[in-house]
Amino acid sequence: MNNSRETKSQTTMEWEAFYNLEVGEKLPFFQQNQRMLDVVFAQQFDRPFLDFICSLANQIRQLARTKMGAEHLRNILPHKRAMLYFVQPSTRTFLSFLNACQILGLNTSEIRGTTTSSEVKGESQEDTIRTFSSYVDMIIVRHPESGFVEKTAWVLNQTERRVPVLNGGSGPDQHPTQALLDIYTLERSFENQSGLDGKSIAMVGDLKRGRTVRSLSYLMQNYRDVTLYFVSPQEFRMKQDIKDHLAKKGVKFTETDDFESVLPLVDGVYMTRIQKEYSQAPDSESDYYPDFFFRKEHLELIQSHCVIMHPLPRRFEIEVDVDKDPRAVYWKQERNGMWLRAALIAYLFGVEEKIMEEFK
Amino acid sequence: MNNSRETKSQTTMEWEAFYNLEVGEKLPFFQQNQRMLDVVFAQQFDRPFLDFICSLANQIRQLARTKMGAEHLRNILPHKRAMLYFVQPSTRTFLSFLNACQILGLNTSEIRGTTTSSEVKGESQEDTIRTFSSYVDMIIVRHPESGFVEKTAWVLNQTERRVPVLNGGSGPDQHPTQALLDIYTLERSFENQSGLDGKSIAMVGDLKRGRTVRSLSYLMQNYRDVTLYFVSPQEFRMKQDIKDHLAKKGVKFTETDDFESVLPLVDGVYMTRIQKEYSQAPDSESDYYPDFFFRKEHLELIQSHCVIMHPLPRRFEIEVDVDKDPRAVYWKQERNGMWLRAALIAYLFGVEEKIMEEFK
Amino acid sequence: MNNSRETKSQTTMEWEAFYNLEVGEKLPFFQQNQRMLDVVFAQQFDRPFLDFICSLANQIRQLARTKMGAEHLRNILPHKRAMLYFVQPSTRTFLSFLNACQILGLNTSEIRGTTTSSEVKGESQEDTIRTFSSYVDMIIVRHPESGFVEKTAWVLNQTERRVPVLNGGSGPDQHPTQALLDIYTLERSFENQSGLDGKSIAMVGDLKRGRTVRSLSYLMQNYRDVTLYFVSPQEFRMKQDIKDHLAKKGVKFTETDDFESVLPLVDGVYMTRIQKEYSQAPDSESDYYPDFFFRKEHLELIQSHCVIMHPLPRRFEIEVDVDKDPRAVYWKQERNGMWLRAALIAYLFGVEEKIMEEFK
Repeated sequence: MNNSRETKSQTTMEWEAFYNLEVGEKLPFFQQNQRMLDVVFAQQFDRPFLDFICSLANQIRQLARTKMGAEHLRNILPHKRAMLYFVQPSTRTFLSFLNACQILGLNTSEIRGTTTSSEVKGESQEDTIRTFSSYVDMIIVRHPESGFVEKTAWVLNQTERRVPVLNGGSGPDQHPTQALLDIYTLERSFENQSGLDGKSIAMVGDLKRGRTVRSLSYLMQNYRDVTLYFVSPQEFRMKQDIKDHLAKKGVKFTETDDFESVLPLVDGVYMTRIQKEYSQAPDSESDYYPDFFFRKEHLELIQSHCVIMHPLPRRFEIEVDVDKDPRAVYWKQERNGMWLRAALIAYLFGVEEKIMEEFK
Repeated sequence: MNNSRETKSQTTMEWEAFYNLEVGEKLPFFQQNQRMLDVVFAQQFDRPFLDFICSLANQIRQLARTKMGAEHLRNILPHKRAMLYFVQPSTRTFLSFLNACQILGLNTSEIRGTTTSSEVKGESQEDTIRTFSSYVDMIIVRHPESGFVEKTAWVLNQTERRVPVLNGGSGPDQHPTQALLDIYTLERSFENQSGLDGKSIAMVGDLKRGRTVRSLSYLMQNYRDVTLYFVSPQEFRMKQDIKDHLAKKGVKFTETDDFESVLPLVDGVYMTRIQKEYSQAPDSESDYYPDFFFRKEHLELIQSHCVIMHPLPRRFEIEVDVDKDPRAVYWKQERNGMWLRAALIAYLFGVEEKIMEEFK
Repeated sequence: MNNSRETKSQTTMEWEAFYNLEVGEKLPFFQQNQRMLDVVFAQQFDRPFLDFICSLANQIRQLARTKMGAEHLRNILPHKRAMLYFVQPSTRTFLSFLNACQILGLNTSEIRGTTTSSEVKGESQEDTIRTFSSYVDMIIVRHPESGFVEKTAWVLNQTERRVPVLNGGSGPDQHPTQALLDIYTLERSFENQSGLDGKSIAMVGDLKRGRTVRSLSYLMQNYRDVTLYFVSPQEFRMKQDIKDHLAKKGVKFTETDDFESVLPLVDGVYMTRIQKEYSQAPDSESDYYPDFFFRKEHLELIQSHCVIMHPLPRRFEIEVDVDKDPRAVYWKQERNGMWLRAALIAYLFGVEEKIMEEFK
């Protein structure tokens, strides 16, 4: 058995060595023929890609409006099959990806929760993943563990069936498609004001732990002359790593805990969930921070073109009555996620031309 | 926070005020351009609609017999996506709706049970519903709470994405598609005897709590010269509200607890589940009522054209050996539910002409 | 009630009488027009059928390589709907069947686990099955009970909707599609050495309880001049029934517990799971048998064309480093299962000609 153990620990070392690399060093590993094959990190997206994917999402959205366009879309990938492997339940992200697949005509298999997984029989994670890849052409993964999606892509990239792996949220850090759909929503909201370049955005709430605002802040380096306002209680301030990164890349930012003073200054307000740290399962408003709560009266403070965003689900961050204001775009933002994910899937299969050609 | 609480309770008031209206006053709210948009109550169906939907179900059933017809059907709604939101498990109704969607080519998303719902994260029901509507074009809901489906439709009808909502059973009262499929089965069974008009129907079992027989009795007002026999133990007699309604509409009915004496008189026997009230989880025949049990020997008592129906699942209401008699139509009734639901979905999307044109 | 009880027990008798027949006597019952309608037992497959189904699987696999071929396949059965009724969870078999259906364009309904089944309401198994058959055109069943799938087919064959039933694993004995995919993998692996005829195969592990090796051994009677090596610890030797059968059919076999000595002699090594009997939930290598473990060093002992197979999932039967050797075909074997199952489904619907015609 010694021989076996040695080999195993050697394999383990290889993964660990890879895992400990800087993100930048890992990126080529998730490419094939100079093109993104797996979507693992928000760091994989540069400005040309962001512009391209937003434009592709726009085309898909527009095509889907007519029956003829919708049928064209459904004939893009009817010969492909995707698996949605959602070990961590997330109805919202699951439905967004599932419907994105359906828009393009892909067939789907679902594994939701762990109870139905073959892991019960004591199979290794690597073998389970290889099994999934035996049947389908793409795997979309959501998992509570940091690094799980990365490992999935890493494992499959060493096999004969190197199918694309799409990160649907992996642990507390990585959720790259959320960052993409936020960018898409900002770009769309400002399409009559020359886009996101030059805009001021307030990010409000728990900036310390919120992976959404962290990823979105990171991507701001791709836009010219953006100003960020980090609005949070002292204990939830944005961490130093992101602030260092922004400083290095020349993205302006300001930190404050005065929510209302920032509102008139910005083009967008990105609200996020925030709750008292001791509160494990909060169920009343008193567990939340009333000073970081967007109320109806605040609609009078923001500019006429300023958009209000939220990654959802919300609890006490935005008053329900705000929903009816045209500047509240969080429901559109949710639907944008579906278009954006459809665009990303089309891109991973290299069929973007077939979508674009309809407009020539 | 006060401002917020006020607004919330105001919104709640609005829903409660609506909820307490008479059903008749609510109906216009579930229409769009003088056409049914949401299916919430059996009270939404009048005779022209019942005739139309039965005829549409017939066409679908006939088309589905050939490959060419089935492919025509699958090309009716391939550009639409439906969600099946089944908080209360019901395999039968779920499968019936799912296959109805597939017949018309709709793609489907499933939420079954509450564990996978985003409600875990403490989102409001209204937000969960809005999220679902972001991704799909129709929502089919089954829920243990009375009024839940009504509220779903009510919430969505105030948003920008007013997608149709279809009631798949909501609490102890509402299950309109069951009533429709029962009507469809009766009409089909009597198609060589000029339909349901003029027929006598026995309803047997727990008439007090059974939502199926209550809705079906209600719809009888749409047919001329129908006679109902309510056959039940004393403690499970039909409630006064339905009897008052029938009297007002001129539908004849008789009440009795003598099952066998009624059998020779009727054109249809509708059996329903009945069990002793103290019995929470009955598992033996002794918990049931032997005098309201259709046995093989009863086949000799009924007329040669009399049909035997049951909403299923059954336990001890109909002996298994009765199944082989051609007058036992409960398995056809079940399959009729699928055709009828497909017809209803086609109607809600306004594509009935595309189905009918195949026959011109 | 007496009358009812009698009738019930009579029906029960009929099933029990049927169930106790010899397998050979049962086979005609699962046919329609001299053609297999239900797939219940491995004993239903003879050599012409095995050759045919392997050839059909090959065609499907080849067609699926191009978008045009894949679209041809998806137009084979788009007018049919299948149900996957998996009372016993098995992600692997489930995904294999689901994707096989999708390849041919079938729509699918899923019942996984028992909690969502209507059995909760106290319905009989027979009624549940009839309900499923009301909505779909084929039922694929996996169930922990021996004989359950057989009973499903038997029940439906006495109704008006006699839809095909496909055994996806029923109790400890029957898993006919696993046997088929093993045969397919052997035939494919030896396609340049005139196929499985004349080959020597080692079966290793728990031969006593393993249904996979039992079924595969049984099917060997269909091939000329095959030699089997049964390699196991004393306590897990192949049972007498199979050995008697092989002796009667003239299939040569040898029993041994010396794993390494057999390796140089064979054309294929079929590894299976084995664990110490006292060990209920083994989680370490020490619960396994190191002498029946295929390690990297064994690659030097086997012939250059010898294939290594495993039904998966594996734990400590094959070292992970063996995976990279081209003779390790267990991942291909898994994917072969999907092609083979697609072939079987096409056959059950009688559409094999439509697949084959593409190659004329």
